Amino acid sequence: MHTVKHENVIYKFEPEMEPVLEVESGAIVHFESNDCFFQQLKSNEDVINEIDFDRVNPATGPVSVKGAEPGDLLKVEILAIDLADEGVSVCMPGHGALPDEVRESTVRVIPVKDGYADYLGLKLPLAPMIGVIGVAPSDEEGSFPTATPWRHGGNMDTRDIRKGRTIYFPVAQAGALFALGDCHALMGDGEVSVSGLEIPADVLVRLSVLKGISAPWPILETESETMVIASGKDLEEAVRHANSAVVGVLSRALQVQWEEAYILASLAVDTRISQVVDPTMTVRAAVSKEIISTEVFLENLKK
Amino acid sequence: MHTVKHENVIYKFEPEMEPVLEVESGAIVHFESNDCFFQQLKSNEDVINEIDFDRVNPATGPVSVKGAEPGDLLKVEILAIDLADEGVSVCMPGHGALPDEVRESTVRVIPVKDGYADYLGLKLPLAPMIGVIGVAPSDEEGSFPTATPWRHGGNMDTRDIRKGRTIYFPVAQAGALFALGDCHALMGDGEVSVSGLEIPADVLVRLSVLKGISAPWPILETESETMVIASGKDLEEAVRHANSAVVGVLSRALQVQWEEAYILASLAVDTRISQVVDPTMTVRAAVSKEIISTEVFLENLKK
Repeated sequence: MHTVKHENVIYKFEPEMEPVLEVESGAIVHFESNDCFFQQLKSNEDVINEIDFDRVNPATGPVSVKGAEPGDLLKVEILAIDLADEGVSVCMPGHGALPDEVRESTVRVIPVKDGYADYLGLKLPLAPMIGVIGVAPSDEEGSFPTATPWRHGGNMDTRDIRKGRTIYFPVAQAGALFALGDCHALMGDGEVSVSGLEIPADVLVRLSVLKGISAPWPILETESETMVIASGKDLEEAVRHANSAVVGVLSRALQVQWEEAYILASLAVDTRISQVVDPTMTVRAAVSKEIISTEVFLENLKK
Repeated sequence: MHTVKHENVIYKFEPEMEPVLEVESGAIVHFESNDCFFQQLKSNEDVINEIDFDRVNPATGPVSVKGAEPGDLLKVEILAIDLADEGVSVCMPGHGALPDEVRESTVRVIPVKDGYADYLGLKLPLAPMIGVIGVAPSDEEGSFPTATPWRHGGNMDTRDIRKGRTIYFPVAQAGALFALGDCHALMGDGEVSVSGLEIPADVLVRLSVLKGISAPWPILETESETMVIASGKDLEEAVRHANSAVVGVLSRALQVQWEEAYILASLAVDTRISQVVDPTMTVRAAVSKEIISTEVFLENLKK
């Protein structure tokens, strides 16, 4: 088993990055994941504006996977997300979905134990997820701060990126150059205050190359659904990107008119908010496996 | 039992409307609900642009409820939604979430039987819901076409408005003046093509007045959650409206700082897309009853 230590981090997903590890397709890799503040906030009295903002949103990696080439998919099976025993959540004036209503920058350190987060006397069930996860972007797309989600992945802050799920990324550079970070112990759809329950974690994934399948956006497989996770400058653009991809797949896979597939999406595809607070906003459009299997979905991603 | 016949329809929710029926608080009323095209589309060969658009989005009613006054809530328990055996779904160039990709106006008549809709050879599970439901707006808000969702309700196109659920509306006029229509046999979150599976239905509701509780937006109670259903000129505004209401309630009900409630919403409130295709867009922000009961939620709606 390979381990990537928590000091090996990037703050941008870039077309050219120096891998810290190279593995065979099918390898299992252990990533030591930092919280999104690189553990700089440790108590409710800490002041957000005094932390080093150059160390926010670290992603552990990147890892090069042998044989991955542009036009392939990188298949990432999430085998484990083991959380630390304490996380932190914050809000700041000018940030989040209600930027004008926040008066005070606030830090809350929150213990995590026995399957629950203890906050305000409430027991909130844990639902560990990976916030930042992705690969090197294409030369045309260029560099993205880790905070910004886009076609290569990044800070998608999507609750469904959990243990037992599989996520597929479009490979744009040789080796794919995969990295992850920013785990949350739990998070509501929207992430309205600007943070989930930010927490260090040990993440185990299996990295495999699927040759000759390209994708416009990351694709997530759950027990019951296939999802396109798309981002945009606003939610409306993200909704368009996600549904354009889904309707194209449905039309090709079911061999029906594009308009018939569009109507099918209107009846049976759920478009869900992931987050509304990052530099680009993210949604996922989810299709039941009763309508189309993930395998057939992936085969029909190509235009 | 009272019945409001399907010919008794409105096309605007207005501050002043003539009720077609007056009932006591607690009465059960049967509404004959038309599909959103008033049954003008009957076959796949029908042409959308040839229908009478003045008859689109009818709502059956309005019904006056004795004792309802501005500052009260109208409690609407949804007891039954019995569908016709056939519905229709459409798309049109320039409409929906992908307005520039639609080439042909398309009508699909879809049979509904034994719990499923038959479409493209697929069996899609039914999930009957009410698309348009609401009360008379305030004098300050003025009139709204039934197609436009806002604080009074209207065309919220929210999948959770189903049998067994209860929805609460802010009363703005004496008698509340309640109406409903536009049922869907099923619909995906987003309603991306611009229609659900539009279908006539017989809807049974109990209408009751809750004195002295005001609300900024319609509130929906499900088996496990309380939701604020809010609309906006875009999704971002709808997200702000819904979360501003929820965070205020949580702060007052739990007696915590507003910022602490904002962080709680970020961790545990899900903001979900209802529809992205009406003149205003709609989301709902959902809070688990494990965090706060619907009763306590309603008590803390007032500022």
